[in-house]
Amino acid sequence: MTRFLIIISFLYFGIQHTYSQEETVSAIFENALNSKVAYENLRILCETTEGRISGSPAAAAAVEFTRQIMENMDIDSVYLQEMMVPNWKREGPEVARIISAELGNQDINVLALGLSVGTGPQGLSAEIVEILTLDELEHHGRKGLENKIVFFNRPVDQSHYNTFEGYSGAVDQRFHGPAMAAEYGAAAAVIRSITTADHDYPHTGVTRFREDGKNIPALAVSPHGADILETWLKADPELKLFLRSNANQLPDVVSYNVIGEIRGSVYPDQIITVGGHLDAWDNSQGAHDDGAGCMQSVDVLRIFLELGIQPKRTIRAVMFMDEEISQRGGRKYAEEANRKNEKHYFAIESDRGAFTPRGFSIDASDERIADIRELKSYFEPYGIHGIFKGSSGVDISFLRNYYDMPLAGLVTDSQRYFDLHHSANDTFDMINRREMQLGSAAMASLIYLLDHLDILQE
Amino acid sequence: MTRFLIIISFLYFGIQHTYSQEETVSAIFENALNSKVAYENLRILCETTEGRISGSPAAAAAVEFTRQIMENMDIDSVYLQEMMVPNWKREGPEVARIISAELGNQDINVLALGLSVGTGPQGLSAEIVEILTLDELEHHGRKGLENKIVFFNRPVDQSHYNTFEGYSGAVDQRFHGPAMAAEYGAAAAVIRSITTADHDYPHTGVTRFREDGKNIPALAVSPHGADILETWLKADPELKLFLRSNANQLPDVVSYNVIGEIRGSVYPDQIITVGGHLDAWDNSQGAHDDGAGCMQSVDVLRIFLELGIQPKRTIRAVMFMDEEISQRGGRKYAEEANRKNEKHYFAIESDRGAFTPRGFSIDASDERIADIRELKSYFEPYGIHGIFKGSSGVDISFLRNYYDMPLAGLVTDSQRYFDLHHSANDTFDMINRREMQLGSAAMASLIYLLDHLDILQE
Repeated sequence: MTRFLIIISFLYFGIQHTYSQEETVSAIFENALNSKVAYENLRILCETTEGRISGSPAAAAAVEFTRQIMENMDIDSVYLQEMMVPNWKREGPEVARIISAELGNQDINVLALGLSVGTGPQGLSAEIVEILTLDELEHHGRKGLENKIVFFNRPVDQSHYNTFEGYSGAVDQRFHGPAMAAEYGAAAAVIRSITTADHDYPHTGVTRFREDGKNIPALAVSPHGADILETWLKADPELKLFLRSNANQLPDVVSYNVIGEIRGSVYPDQIITVGGHLDAWDNSQGAHDDGAGCMQSVDVLRIFLELGIQPKRTIRAVMFMDEEISQRGGRKYAEEANRKNEKHYFAIESDRGAFTPRGFSIDASDERIADIRELKSYFEPYGIHGIFKGSSGVDISFLRNYYDMPLAGLVTDSQRYFDLHHSANDTFDMINRREMQLGSAAMASLIYLLDHLDILQE
Repeated sequence: MTRFLIIISFLYFGIQHTYSQEETVSAIFENALNSKVAYENLRILCETTEGRISGSPAAAAAVEFTRQIMENMDIDSVYLQEMMVPNWKREGPEVARIISAELGNQDINVLALGLSVGTGPQGLSAEIVEILTLDELEHHGRKGLENKIVFFNRPVDQSHYNTFEGYSGAVDQRFHGPAMAAEYGAAAAVIRSITTADHDYPHTGVTRFREDGKNIPALAVSPHGADILETWLKADPELKLFLRSNANQLPDVVSYNVIGEIRGSVYPDQIITVGGHLDAWDNSQGAHDDGAGCMQSVDVLRIFLELGIQPKRTIRAVMFMDEEISQRGGRKYAEEANRKNEKHYFAIESDRGAFTPRGFSIDASDERIADIRELKSYFEPYGIHGIFKGSSGVDISFLRNYYDMPLAGLVTDSQRYFDLHHSANDTFDMINRREMQLGSAAMASLIYLLDHLDILQE
């Protein structure tokens, strides 16, 4: 505990007058903006554990790398939390070829959806039924869809300022579309990538797996590929699409959440969680989604250590495993907390991309949110204006099964997120160090204030 | 004027109740977020008029391209405003080579500063004096600096949330440093690039030209190059730097501001200006600085046209020439306005990069700013929270010589701007379409509200 003797000068002065919280928040932001630690660790994570989907060797490497990062910090404990995770494996590359007697052949870029099944090595080819809303499936019925490939082609509505609204309005196609099309006997499903970008990267993501086994191949098409398919279909409605993909669900394997703790000085049994998810899509470096959230969470611990801020409560940085497929890490973390009768004071997750922070989305009662909103003047100097009711983060949301404390999500500028989300475009070079560090500082500041001022104490 | 017959439905409904302004602002943002026009025009501007510093053929091409864009719109008039502009020409590439008897030789990346003189074809080589503040020049004096190369090595302070504060705290080195070092007989000056980035691009910019002719070669060093020079100097303070650069100030040439207007329906003699600057550094595509500001300004006209919003006052989109060297375009525009006894109601400039808009910086009396701040609820849904007193834009600021109406600058998220400002890194692929379009929408909305509600009417 020698580190706590290194109390920096502003805290001494802070004791003398009433502005110490503001000065501490200012020191947190200044420290974060001058640090390259999390950014350089993210570079290594991205470059050495690319494609770290749950069950993969890259995911195991990511577990070990983040464990080592925290082992090398002067924190109180670092440990792994074991669970079984799914082990879905793509065997790429996939092929999608438009075959038109009128127009010739044209390959388009596709990527199998998570949990999807393959076509087999021979592939399949079938005519296309283009659909914009899931309702249209019923309209076409089995007669119209049997042995056809359903092309879900509704783009993200760009009208919304918040791109998560556009995404939410389109992602039903990816998640429910294939399983619903299968019900009508469709041969396969291809989905226009759920993205705001206009490029040739397909964007994958998980699709609903039918437990009854009636699953069909399901692939995301790049925006450019979807434009081509749409245009060609207008010219030749009889064209066929040849698809070949292979993917398997292998038996579950062991994996881990990676956890590091600074023990609280006053209420060590009260836990504050800050986390991100360590897994990423198999086609991606997972820089924004969500390597950055993990490195920001570790950075919260680094900031507390470097500034000598001794938390009253225990702060845990958690790298959750398997957010993308079946959220076993988040479930396990909550179950273990409950099993051990842990007390949880607050949790926050960063999983909206490492862009400039704009606010906190809080899952809590209106009263609690009003309490937290009292802190807004601390954040406004850093362009953070939104403290509002909303969802927190997928991984920490399972704590709600057992606890009623506030859960929060770091809200960041959403304009660029769905340009890269779940695509090969989500690379380290798309990260801006300062934007990422502002996110670390925002979470560290909120945790510091809620802890130091006992705002959520019952 | 047929376009004004195409009034879209929300305006009809708007007449029926009191929320028409909010609905119009909403329609402006929705239109902008769905449009690719300005973005695609910016792509062409960047790719075909790269390096369009005032006086260059590329600048002439940019004048013609933007004139044609506006000629092809259904606006009331498009015209050029002629003036003479400086014609400083780099003859690159420059060479900077560290020569150390101890360590060997090492080239570092440099770029001559705007208005700087060259070394001549033989180059020059001299010992280095590293300096962090301009005050140190006097401390070293002529004895310490004569025939030496002064290395201004103070980095941008990253502690500030607003990177313009960090930039402002360092740019004295680039602007005043060489001219001051010349006073002490220095042979040349090299300046650590004024940037937040950690990369190998040098960032140029204008330096003060001494009218007495005692100018010395002055070059920006990339951050990596500055790190190398700093490190090598510690190991070998006797090392020399060889510099070779060539640049000339040729006679002034004719160039133009490019102006497009929609005539006002009620007060056509009252002018609202929206602008950016068309010139860019000779090493750069000038995407964020300031091609985007130009294309956003034209986009304000497009939005008014497409939504059938008829302004009461005349709206002018102005692409100013020669912001980077001597602001002849801004000066000319203001002089002509005064000479013609024009009435000016409001002006806004976009020249802080096409990032997500965060507010408006307004040069006006406190009372006027308070009036404008009354509009803030229109902007908050789009993450725009700051309406504050501050500088507007370099080009429009010359209007202040003759007018006292409010001048505004579009304030955008500043985190990434100085990573690319004045460097070869300021390319079209660094532009996010949605972020750019939010800027167009923010300016169009503010102009619409100030005009429609007569907020600034005397």
